[in-house]
Amino acid sequence: MLNYTHNNNELTLNNLNEVVNLKGWVLKKRNLGGLIFIDLRDKSGITQLVVKPESPLYELASSLKNEYVIEVSGTVVERESKNLNIKTGEIEVVLSSLNILNISENPPFTLSEQENVSEEVRLKYRYLDLRKPNAQNYLMKRSQITQAIRKSLIEQSFLELETPYLVKSTPEGAKEFIVPSRLYHGEGYSLAQSPQIFKQLYMIAGFEKYFQFARCFRDEDLRADRQLEFTQIDIESSFVDQKDILKIGEKVMADMFKEVFGKTLELPLRQMTYQEAFNSYGSDKPDLRYELKIKDFKEQLSKFDIPLFNNQEVVRGFELENNALFTRKYFDKLTEIVKKNHGSGLAYVRNETGILNGSIAKYVDETVVKPGFILFLIPGEYEDATNASGALRKELAKDLGFIDASIESLLWITDFPLLEYNKEDNRFYARHHPFTAPKDVNDLINNPKEALAKAYDMVWNGYEIGGGSIRIHEQRVQNLMFETLGFTEAQIQNKFGFFIDALKFGTPPHGGIAFGLDRIVMLATKTDNIKDVIAFPKTQSARDLMMQSPNEIDENQFKELGLKVIK
Amino acid sequence: MLNYTHNNNELTLNNLNEVVNLKGWVLKKRNLGGLIFIDLRDKSGITQLVVKPESPLYELASSLKNEYVIEVSGTVVERESKNLNIKTGEIEVVLSSLNILNISENPPFTLSEQENVSEEVRLKYRYLDLRKPNAQNYLMKRSQITQAIRKSLIEQSFLELETPYLVKSTPEGAKEFIVPSRLYHGEGYSLAQSPQIFKQLYMIAGFEKYFQFARCFRDEDLRADRQLEFTQIDIESSFVDQKDILKIGEKVMADMFKEVFGKTLELPLRQMTYQEAFNSYGSDKPDLRYELKIKDFKEQLSKFDIPLFNNQEVVRGFELENNALFTRKYFDKLTEIVKKNHGSGLAYVRNETGILNGSIAKYVDETVVKPGFILFLIPGEYEDATNASGALRKELAKDLGFIDASIESLLWITDFPLLEYNKEDNRFYARHHPFTAPKDVNDLINNPKEALAKAYDMVWNGYEIGGGSIRIHEQRVQNLMFETLGFTEAQIQNKFGFFIDALKFGTPPHGGIAFGLDRIVMLATKTDNIKDVIAFPKTQSARDLMMQSPNEIDENQFKELGLKVIK
Repeated sequence: MLNYTHNNNELTLNNLNEVVNLKGWVLKKRNLGGLIFIDLRDKSGITQLVVKPESPLYELASSLKNEYVIEVSGTVVERESKNLNIKTGEIEVVLSSLNILNISENPPFTLSEQENVSEEVRLKYRYLDLRKPNAQNYLMKRSQITQAIRKSLIEQSFLELETPYLVKSTPEGAKEFIVPSRLYHGEGYSLAQSPQIFKQLYMIAGFEKYFQFARCFRDEDLRADRQLEFTQIDIESSFVDQKDILKIGEKVMADMFKEVFGKTLELPLRQMTYQEAFNSYGSDKPDLRYELKIKDFKEQLSKFDIPLFNNQEVVRGFELENNALFTRKYFDKLTEIVKKNHGSGLAYVRNETGILNGSIAKYVDETVVKPGFILFLIPGEYEDATNASGALRKELAKDLGFIDASIESLLWITDFPLLEYNKEDNRFYARHHPFTAPKDVNDLINNPKEALAKAYDMVWNGYEIGGGSIRIHEQRVQNLMFETLGFTEAQIQNKFGFFIDALKFGTPPHGGIAFGLDRIVMLATKTDNIKDVIAFPKTQSARDLMMQSPNEIDENQFKELGLKVIK
Repeated sequence: MLNYTHNNNELTLNNLNEVVNLKGWVLKKRNLGGLIFIDLRDKSGITQLVVKPESPLYELASSLKNEYVIEVSGTVVERESKNLNIKTGEIEVVLSSLNILNISENPPFTLSEQENVSEEVRLKYRYLDLRKPNAQNYLMKRSQITQAIRKSLIEQSFLELETPYLVKSTPEGAKEFIVPSRLYHGEGYSLAQSPQIFKQLYMIAGFEKYFQFARCFRDEDLRADRQLEFTQIDIESSFVDQKDILKIGEKVMADMFKEVFGKTLELPLRQMTYQEAFNSYGSDKPDLRYELKIKDFKEQLSKFDIPLFNNQEVVRGFELENNALFTRKYFDKLTEIVKKNHGSGLAYVRNETGILNGSIAKYVDETVVKPGFILFLIPGEYEDATNASGALRKELAKDLGFIDASIESLLWITDFPLLEYNKEDNRFYARHHPFTAPKDVNDLINNPKEALAKAYDMVWNGYEIGGGSIRIHEQRVQNLMFETLGFTEAQIQNKFGFFIDALKFGTPPHGGIAFGLDRIVMLATKTDNIKDVIAFPKTQSARDLMMQSPNEIDENQFKELGLKVIK
């Protein structure tokens, strides 16, 4: 192989007359007026090569096809027709040698972003799909973001430490992958859903500051932005309270913004309680790139007799400027969204310069809505109506173009409820996990329904990108928690056994946070498909279309594990 | 919590009279002449605290027990009896406040290195075991080594990129873990044994320089230095030949030595062919901290009639200074080692100032061995006798103290055989894997038995710490390889299907290497137990004694996977 002198994004008029050695793939070959032009691509960019009709290389160059791998030598000359869109667009390289390193069959699709190829075909030939500039950019950014975050954590004195992936299976772990043991038939490991217990053990073991880019495995029914395996930036620290973890977490993000995008993220980030977020935006992950606050209209409308609103706990909604989009068909779509989000129904009234119309127009007068505006209203119980209003808010913002894509909106949501009461089985469940510390231990005893947690999420443009909590470090509080959750001693031992033991031996106060790397890269690169930022993703039906996995497991292989398939 | 002013390894006489806030664990409490002395430990080190009899804190301080977690304020004063072994040994802190953050039960073992605790107990309470200074050091060094290696690779323009762990199962993968699919009964994924295929796909996709700290999963019967999961520093590059990869690999190690230990590793590393290593040291991973070369004695001994050596292909061995260790019992032990390593037997002759003794003394004269020396000889076929000589060499060096522990011996072994011929099923197997490039394609065609591979290992003090190869990038050569291995078209499709497809579309020349992180940390920290450098290891019987895994999998959980246990 040659000693390559430059990458393909480097040569400019400053290199005129230099003899250079380059390598890469044939992106395109054109024959113009007897001259052969070749766009040579490597991971850095493109350089134009030229072979003249009188060149001894002419025949060989003519034989080149797309995606052939070549190395060349040549002289840098000024181009006649310049392309000022790329850095190397003012020069071209007149070839003096050409060596074909490998040939290529005709790819199943061209590597231009424009061609519309189905996701199925793209994923089957993912190694070709990844040659496209966008795909290259997603993964290079991923690598840069990874480094920037790691650098920030190391500068903050964190140790990078690993945790096992083959862990103990817990009987209720519906979402866990089982790895049967070959040595002990009937037994098995589970693939770690997160390093939660291990990072707390690191704190118990006295490491004080831990982080890891950890793979997590969850056997979930796949949604658009979930994968069977995903990468979590896992962070835990001892001798801290909530404010310390928030400071660490937001510094990580600010350092990443600075290092990768040269942007300044103003710190501290805004903090909003869960209660305020839900009340004003109908969501625990509000997108604050637009306002559109949810309000309560029950009081204001109480003087009217609106049958739909009778005996309803609340009437929630918001007013916005009337829009040509608001057709009957569109209202139907909105109503569907409201219902899908537990709303009882959608009412609206529009003021068209004094004339009211809409589903409740005949019950009200024009004092309820400004001329040129429309009022959306969802009656019902507080939780459901607010939740549905949040979904409506999101949909309208998207459709009406309220979102300013140049803004990055990051904030903390704090003060989450500690517990969730389940009416059906008449007991509390931990909202986060049973090791999350209460904000006030007395509430846990006297008023568990209202107890708040030392738990927090970071939200970016309406996505939850990270979450964590201060953990319970005192045996006494842990026991209180288990009592409140109605666990028996046997259940505690079975579920948390060794970890409860560990808590006995001088556990320091500690807490942490975990960020979702895939989501962060997705948001940072402004794509909306998480698969774009994962090199070898699985489909929503949990298949790898390239490898063709999962695949049938041989009967004998199962037998070796002491298992057989139920027909 | 307090605002901590110092870590516990920081205070010196420079801080006299300062008021400081500290935190940590009670390592030891002593009551001397009415004064209470507390050794306060955190991850950085130890600071001595004092409480005087007249202090209002005296009672609280008296109640402290080992491993209690506390935070304190106090004033730095000069110690009366100094401890010059630690940095803070000239001062102590007279407490003005003391806050117990958490209590501790009495640990099942003390945290001194001296106490002899069984591995079983240590692993059961691993979170306590990890509080010991040695254990802390192993894992902190692990974190530092990880960062140093990563930094080196990033400076060498490598991208850090991830690969999936849930991959396609291959029917012959005896050592793979199976992860049954919940969606598709009878099907499953396999846990990646290494990212080999994916790193090659990254090269095909045009990323040119990839690295990853990858977890690898192998369901092996565990040896002392193997775990079910281990961490590999996985590296691959395009447009390179062997010399380039060696350069990258040795720079990584040199940078690590410099950054973590401040030592200079002289580059380039020595290179030795596999043939020379095996011939002279009976090993493909020779420990060169001592010489003791294996030689051939057949020629020299041919004038004697030694029945044991008749009709033997070779007589291999070495001479060394006679030693008091060489008793009958010791020879028995050596003979056992020779036999376990495929040697037919061990002969020796000793020259005690003119008088010969030993198993072949009566057949030879004193010209064969110098006075005061002993000659060890292993007859047999070349491979077996050399292999056994290598094992003998290692054992003797260890027992006789030939190893200078202050030396670090790193070298490359190159020119491995490409194929291994198996007499039983009368066919060739790939020694590395079937994608390894031959040194000369013509040999693959004309003389496959002698064909060498573009494959290389890095060896450190007798351990293989890394290995890799240049890969086949041409379809034509790949087909030749498969033909030589006797694969049918159907077998190729079944085993390598999509990857063979991928090779068709302009695969660049590429190659790489993978280092074993666990082994590197083990050698760097001079321990000989790989479990020491893994935070939460499994035992040799594949069990996690702390979590108690693997554990029984519920019948219903298997049922959900379409499986049942064979009774």
